[in-house]
Amino acid sequence: MTPKVIHRLSIYRRILIELQAQGLAYLYSHQLAALAGGTAALVRRDLMRIGFTGSPARGYEVTALIDAVGKVLDHPEGLRVALVGVGNLGRAVLAYFLGRKPNLTIVAAFDSDSALAGRVIHGCRCHAATDLARICRELGVQVGIITVPAAAAQAAVDTMREAGVSSFVNFAPVALRLPPDVHVQEMDITTTVEKAGYFARRDGEAKPI
Amino acid sequence: MTPKVIHRLSIYRRILIELQAQGLAYLYSHQLAALAGGTAALVRRDLMRIGFTGSPARGYEVTALIDAVGKVLDHPEGLRVALVGVGNLGRAVLAYFLGRKPNLTIVAAFDSDSALAGRVIHGCRCHAATDLARICRELGVQVGIITVPAAAAQAAVDTMREAGVSSFVNFAPVALRLPPDVHVQEMDITTTVEKAGYFARRDGEAKPI
Repeated sequence: MTPKVIHRLSIYRRILIELQAQGLAYLYSHQLAALAGGTAALVRRDLMRIGFTGSPARGYEVTALIDAVGKVLDHPEGLRVALVGVGNLGRAVLAYFLGRKPNLTIVAAFDSDSALAGRVIHGCRCHAATDLARICRELGVQVGIITVPAAAAQAAVDTMREAGVSSFVNFAPVALRLPPDVHVQEMDITTTVEKAGYFARRDGEAKPI
Repeated sequence: MTPKVIHRLSIYRRILIELQAQGLAYLYSHQLAALAGGTAALVRRDLMRIGFTGSPARGYEVTALIDAVGKVLDHPEGLRVALVGVGNLGRAVLAYFLGRKPNLTIVAAFDSDSALAGRVIHGCRCHAATDLARICRELGVQVGIITVPAAAAQAAVDTMREAGVSSFVNFAPVALRLPPDVHVQEMDITTTVEKAGYFARRDGEAKPI
């Protein structure tokens, strides 16, 4: 599956989980498409790709579809994620994921401030940065979330890669140098808000040039 | 300027602010390029575009360059940002921006839970969702951060647009329907981490197909 299909499946699932909580049992492809922003044909193609079909009379069964998407997206034994950098942003990410998804857990956090080692922050145990490689290996960490300052990001990623981590979400405002078999998702909140600010109308102006 | 140039300028500035804090007074285009992930030629072109030049002997002056980028990115009277949806994610975003940037302040937060109205959360005053249009207009809000559930996002954006908000950062997992003169930056943390998880190596496998 391509990153775009995976992206859409993840969005479908989140919409479906919300609809399920509202008590909806069935929905049609055009309804899901309207919420996800694509066409009904694209929804049908994506779901056929994961082997899921609806009934012409009632559409897709919501609970079964959530399970089917989960079989594609989720690791059978849960995804083991570690976070590096327990500053303001790192704590926000820990709080965001706390108890959020049973199959996606931040199993360890790391910080260069050794005073944090041993503490539990938003449900996640913190460790000294010097233990990064050892603990990632012991816990079988698969995904790294990078919330350190830009200058420290590359070293953190290199250490985690050596310990077997093969996929990263990078919140640090720096482009990481990585071989092609390593997956990186960029996630830069400040830059995103600054861009939105630049393209906001300034008093009276239509749009900045 | 294009969104890509604005994106790079924002990244340059964040790197420069970190280097300034470490005491660096000058740097060369190739040093900035190495940290930002582009080429030295691209850095020079971007900075020429904002009318900034370095000296061949010492490179760019860090403090002056930070100011020059700020003149392009920042609104002269500060950017007025409002956040809608004071749940787990909304609070994390408020905490992230608390005291972070003098020229980028979240001036108001809104939630459908009227019990939050009047409270100050991470330095930001909360208001009832029913006051969204009125307060956005009164405060001259330019950018909206959307941290409500998917089903509530479109209505929040529509109300803010009517109140003059022209640029959005959307954390809700839903594609917003907006006219072309409205700018939207998508920011979906769960989807990003789920994608990273999908592309993480599973036990023994090279990569999922």
